[in-house]
Amino acid sequence: MVTSTAVNMYPLANYTFGTKEPKMEKDTSVADRLARMKVNYMKEGMRTSVEAILLVQEHNHPHILLLQIGNTFCKLPGGRLKPGENEIEGLKRKLSSKLGANSPSFQQNWQIGECVAVWWRPNFETAMYPYCPPHITKPKECKKLFLVHLPEREFFAVPKNLKLLAVPLFELYDNVSRYGPIISTIPQQLSRFQFNMVSS
Amino acid sequence: MVTSTAVNMYPLANYTFGTKEPKMEKDTSVADRLARMKVNYMKEGMRTSVEAILLVQEHNHPHILLLQIGNTFCKLPGGRLKPGENEIEGLKRKLSSKLGANSPSFQQNWQIGECVAVWWRPNFETAMYPYCPPHITKPKECKKLFLVHLPEREFFAVPKNLKLLAVPLFELYDNVSRYGPIISTIPQQLSRFQFNMVSS
Repeated sequence: MVTSTAVNMYPLANYTFGTKEPKMEKDTSVADRLARMKVNYMKEGMRTSVEAILLVQEHNHPHILLLQIGNTFCKLPGGRLKPGENEIEGLKRKLSSKLGANSPSFQQNWQIGECVAVWWRPNFETAMYPYCPPHITKPKECKKLFLVHLPEREFFAVPKNLKLLAVPLFELYDNVSRYGPIISTIPQQLSRFQFNMVSS
Repeated sequence: MVTSTAVNMYPLANYTFGTKEPKMEKDTSVADRLARMKVNYMKEGMRTSVEAILLVQEHNHPHILLLQIGNTFCKLPGGRLKPGENEIEGLKRKLSSKLGANSPSFQQNWQIGECVAVWWRPNFETAMYPYCPPHITKPKECKKLFLVHLPEREFFAVPKNLKLLAVPLFELYDNVSRYGPIISTIPQQLSRFQFNMVSS
């Protein structure tokens, strides 16, 4: 695990993108998703999920890589940990599953950095909060966002049903209607870092 | 400077509050403030300001100490650095000026912690952003927010024209209309910390 407030950021053009087999969503509706969450909670207790903030630069401004599903919904790469799984190892597993090449000869070496935000789901509902609300003793989910330090060059294999977008911070900021409460406040969480814009 | 992701938080009742002479605002309107900022910029270049997040707990939920001016406007304790002044020393000076007892025999030992957010003012306008916007080469202000680790007990002297409020995170969250864009997203910036609620 790498922790530093100085982060190197390389141009989007340094990265190459291919495709791989689709990764379908497990649920086809929000209601299905919350119902599955409830079933899993009964079996395994609180869900822990981990998500990655992958940063690149264009015109010396930070951009975040987001996976777009369909025409509107965007999410960070990541997902649910297995019961008892280590957060860092679990995030590496999820990143390889979502964006890694399906090749044993080409293994990404994901550099997981600082945890930048933690969100809590108090009930089997869509609302999440950046704190565990008072009087909630059994939250249903804890989601952690980690900075991931990309190497100077990398290849990403994107599932065919998804698009990988590089979205500038100025587009995310104050845009809760388009990106939701978690992604739209990432600019604030990143503001304390010193970004070294590497131009080659 | 103390940096740790574990933060002890003590009950509000541990702290005692007195009053001292008023600290009047230097400007009586937003227009005056921006005009003074412009004059200072010509003399001294970019303004750097530092503000403190002072945390206490009530009912095991984090609360932030805010200074209220008049009936509505709230701000974090802090202020503008002198040209060339060290950020940490400058924040200590500002905290003593805003909240310290005016007594040479009683000097607070402020423990300045992590920088949790940085905001930029691109123009002589009220809008600030958690990044320096593209194409802005000469921002007019850089404001940094620091966590301040309070001791188990402390005495604060509050200027008579201000009120010191302990505001819970759940009141700040998603409340930009009441607290503005900077203070209302402090809950997100604090979410990555582990708070130890000390109950004595």
